[in-house]
Amino acid sequence: MARARKLLVPHLGFPSLNLIARFRNEANRVRPTCLFSRGIRVRSLVLICFLLALAGPEFARAEQSPEADVSRVASNPRFKAAQKVLMSEHGRTVADIIRLTEIPAPPFGEARRAAEVRKDFEALGLKDVAIDAEGNVTGVRPGLRTAGRGPFLVVAAHLDTVFPEGTDVRVRRDGWRLAAPGVGDNTRSLATLLAWIRALDAAGLKTDSDILFVANVGEEGQGDLRGMKALFGKGSYAGRISAFFSVDGSDPAGVVTRGVGSNRYRVVFSGPGGHSYGAFGIVNPMAAMAGAISGLYALTPPASPKTTYSASVAGGGTSVNTIPASVFVEVDLRSEDPKALAELDRGFRSAVDRAVAAENAARSTALGPVKAELKVLGERPAGMTASDSRLVRITRAAITAQGFTAEEEASSTDSNIPMSLGIPAVTIGAGGRGGRAHAPDEWIDVEPVEMVRGMSAGLLAIVAQAGVR
Amino acid sequence: MARARKLLVPHLGFPSLNLIARFRNEANRVRPTCLFSRGIRVRSLVLICFLLALAGPEFARAEQSPEADVSRVASNPRFKAAQKVLMSEHGRTVADIIRLTEIPAPPFGEARRAAEVRKDFEALGLKDVAIDAEGNVTGVRPGLRTAGRGPFLVVAAHLDTVFPEGTDVRVRRDGWRLAAPGVGDNTRSLATLLAWIRALDAAGLKTDSDILFVANVGEEGQGDLRGMKALFGKGSYAGRISAFFSVDGSDPAGVVTRGVGSNRYRVVFSGPGGHSYGAFGIVNPMAAMAGAISGLYALTPPASPKTTYSASVAGGGTSVNTIPASVFVEVDLRSEDPKALAELDRGFRSAVDRAVAAENAARSTALGPVKAELKVLGERPAGMTASDSRLVRITRAAITAQGFTAEEEASSTDSNIPMSLGIPAVTIGAGGRGGRAHAPDEWIDVEPVEMVRGMSAGLLAIVAQAGVR
Repeated sequence: MARARKLLVPHLGFPSLNLIARFRNEANRVRPTCLFSRGIRVRSLVLICFLLALAGPEFARAEQSPEADVSRVASNPRFKAAQKVLMSEHGRTVADIIRLTEIPAPPFGEARRAAEVRKDFEALGLKDVAIDAEGNVTGVRPGLRTAGRGPFLVVAAHLDTVFPEGTDVRVRRDGWRLAAPGVGDNTRSLATLLAWIRALDAAGLKTDSDILFVANVGEEGQGDLRGMKALFGKGSYAGRISAFFSVDGSDPAGVVTRGVGSNRYRVVFSGPGGHSYGAFGIVNPMAAMAGAISGLYALTPPASPKTTYSASVAGGGTSVNTIPASVFVEVDLRSEDPKALAELDRGFRSAVDRAVAAENAARSTALGPVKAELKVLGERPAGMTASDSRLVRITRAAITAQGFTAEEEASSTDSNIPMSLGIPAVTIGAGGRGGRAHAPDEWIDVEPVEMVRGMSAGLLAIVAQAGVR
Repeated sequence: MARARKLLVPHLGFPSLNLIARFRNEANRVRPTCLFSRGIRVRSLVLICFLLALAGPEFARAEQSPEADVSRVASNPRFKAAQKVLMSEHGRTVADIIRLTEIPAPPFGEARRAAEVRKDFEALGLKDVAIDAEGNVTGVRPGLRTAGRGPFLVVAAHLDTVFPEGTDVRVRRDGWRLAAPGVGDNTRSLATLLAWIRALDAAGLKTDSDILFVANVGEEGQGDLRGMKALFGKGSYAGRISAFFSVDGSDPAGVVTRGVGSNRYRVVFSGPGGHSYGAFGIVNPMAAMAGAISGLYALTPPASPKTTYSASVAGGGTSVNTIPASVFVEVDLRSEDPKALAELDRGFRSAVDRAVAAENAARSTALGPVKAELKVLGERPAGMTASDSRLVRITRAAITAQGFTAEEEASSTDSNIPMSLGIPAVTIGAGGRGGRAHAPDEWIDVEPVEMVRGMSAGLLAIVAQAGVR
C-alpha cells in the first residue's frame, strides 16, 4: 500500500455509548467473509460483550462529538508540546528512516528489521515488548484508565517492502529528498511510530486508553496480511483490540475506510488425458475450465459496493495433439463488501462445480472423470468502517485541523482484517510527500514543516481516539 | 509414422479406363481441404485432363482385374529373379540401413542424409537425379512406354526422423536385431528403395510406366509434410504424378488407405488488459477464449468418417490481479475425410468469431476490443484412396500373395497429400519386424527370410502398378 493522511482529536478515552452502539451495529452489519476463521468471529463477539461491560461507567460521561474531541485535544498544551517535539526531533526521525530503510525487509524476510524495531520499542520504554510467533513486533504504551490491561487501540505500520532479497536499499539523499526502495512504503511510517512515542513521552501526554504499537509483517502481496491475521486471530492480543490505525505511506489527507477484500485462486482442472485422435471422446479438463470461466463471466456482481472478478492467468497442456491431463486458471475476486465477496465466491465455486459436472456428463469418463481443485493464492477479507463512525469522524477532523482536505478511499491494507471483524479501523499516511512506491526509484520528501504537519494529523487522531482526561 | 506391409502385382502399365473413371470420381468426391493451396487443385485438374488424353489408346486393351495383374507379375520369371536378388543382396541392404541410420536426419536437418541418398541414386543409374528446393531427393527409373517423360508412379520414403540434432544414432547390432533411433522409422525404408532398384536392374525387369523414386523431407511432426507439399505443389513433378506409394515403417501387412488430416492452430486472444479491480468491466480475452473452447466442444462431428478435436494447450496472462492482454489456446482438428475436416474447421472458426463478438458485446470496449488471431501450427490435408480402387486392390493382392493378411488402416503419412488431391496413394511397410518407433530404443529385425518376404510384397505391388509388358 502507498498512501497517507493526517489527524487531530479530542475524546473521552474509551468508547462512548454512541461508539459502542455503532460498534455493535457494525459487528452485525459487516460480517467476516466466509473465508475468515470462525474463531476470530467468536472472539469478536466476546470483545463486544467485554466492551459493553467496561463501557458502563462511561454512560454517565457527557457525550461529545468526535469533532469536538479533536478540537479539545488540538488545544491541549501537552499535545502542542508533543507537536514541538516532532519538530525538534525531526533530524532524529530522518535518521531513523534511513537506518531502518537500509535493513532489507522483503516479504517473509522481515526478521532483521523486526529485531531492530524491537530494540527501539524497548529503548522508548514501551511495556511488554515482544515479537510474536508470526514476526510482529508489539509494545504497549499503557493508558491511565486501563494501565496496560487492554482493550487496546492499535497503531500499526508494516515492516515489509515489496522488494526481494538482494535489492540495493541504500538511501540516496539529496537535500530533503530521500530515495530508496521501501523508503516511503513503509519505512517512514515505522520511524513515525517511534517519533510519536518519543513526542508523547517528552510532552508528558498520557492517554486514557492503552495504545498497542505494532510493527507488523506480511502486508505486501504474497504476505497476504499474515501479520494482521496473526495479531487479530491468535496470540495474546486477539479479541482485545477496540480500534485500529494502520499507518501506511505518506499522504496525510487520505483515509482508507473501505477495505477491498480479495479471494485469489488457482483452479487446477485435471482428467485422464490422452491422444487427441485416439482418445477422442473422453472428458477434457480444458472444456471444464472454459465452462467455469464462462460461468464466472456470466455473473453480475453489484456496482456498489464495488465487486469485481478477473480470470487472469491460464496454463497447462502437453502438446497440441494431446488431450491435456491438467490445465489451470487463476482468478481474482474482489469486493469492498464482505457479503458481496462471499456471494461472488459462492457464485464462482458453483460455476466451477457446474462446469465439471457438465463436462463429465458430456463426454466419456471411462478413463476417469474431470476434477477441479481450488488452491488459495490469497485471501484478504473485505470490510469497511462507516463514514459516520466515531473513528472516521475523528480521523477526518484531525486531518482537517491540520489544514488538509480529508478524502475517504477504498484500498487493500492491513485494516482489511479488523474491518472484516467489525472492529473500527482506518489506514492513514505518515505525513510528508513521496512517490514511486513499489518502484526502485521510490522517494520521499522530509522537508520539516510539511512533514511535521502531516505527522501531527496522525498523532492528533490517535490521541483523540485514545482519549485524554 | 511407423508401420509397414507387402505386395505383388500384374497390370497393364498405365491407367485403365476403369481406373481413370474411378480417378475422376475420386477427384470429384475427395476434395482438397479449404486449407490446401488452390494452385495444387488446379494442377490436379490439369493432370486429370492429361491422363484422360494419354489413356485413349488404353481403351482398346483388355481389362484385367488388379488381382489377376498381381498374379501375373508374381509368376513373371524376371520378378522371381528380382526376389532372389533381394535375398542375395540382403547383407548389402543391412549395411545400407546401418550407414544411413548413422547419418542424423532431424526435422529440418535432413541435408546430409539427402546428399548420401543422392549419391546412391546416381550410383544405381537413376535418371535426372536431383535434390529439389525443399530438400527432396528424386531420381527416375524410366518405363518402357513413357521413357522418363512421365506421368510417374512415385515410390517415396521419408528421410527425416523425430530425433533432434545431437541424438546418438549409432546402431547397436545383436544378431538380426538392429537398434538405433530412426532405424525403422524410416531408414530401413530408404535402404529398401535402394534394394528394390538394385533387384529390378539385376533381374532386367523393365516396367511400363516411369517410376520416380523419392527420399523426401518433412514427414514427421513439425515437418508438416513439407516434402510432399513441395513435390505435389511445385517443382518439376507437380501435376505429373499418377499414383503414389509411401514406404514408411516395417509392417508388411498394413495398407494406409485413409489419410487422417489435421488442422492445428494456436489461437491468440488479445485485448486491452488492465488492473483486475481498477479496470473491471472491460473485455477480457480469457472470457472470449473460454467461449471459443466451449463452442468447439459443443460441436458433434461424425463418428464415421472419424473426425475429432482437442483443445490441448493453454497459456497467457501476467499476474492474478491483472486482466490479461493476451491468452492463447492450441487446438488440433482431425478427420479421415477432407469434407468433414473442412466442416469442423468452419465450425471452430465460427465458434471463435462468435465468442469474440459475444465478449465485445458483453463488456466495455472503451479501451479496445478483444480480437482473435489464428496461427497455423500444422495443416495435413485429409484424404483417402477407395478400398475398391485399383491401387488398393493391387496392394492388398500383393500382400496376400506373400502370405500376409492385408489390413487397411487410417493414419497421417506422406500419402495424405496425394490423397487430398485425388491422386491414388497408399502407405505400405518396408518389410520385416520392428518396434518402439519414436523412442530412443527403436529397433528392427533383419532376419533375412521374413524381411525379404515383406520386401517382396512391396516390390510386387509397385511392379504391378507400374505394369510389365
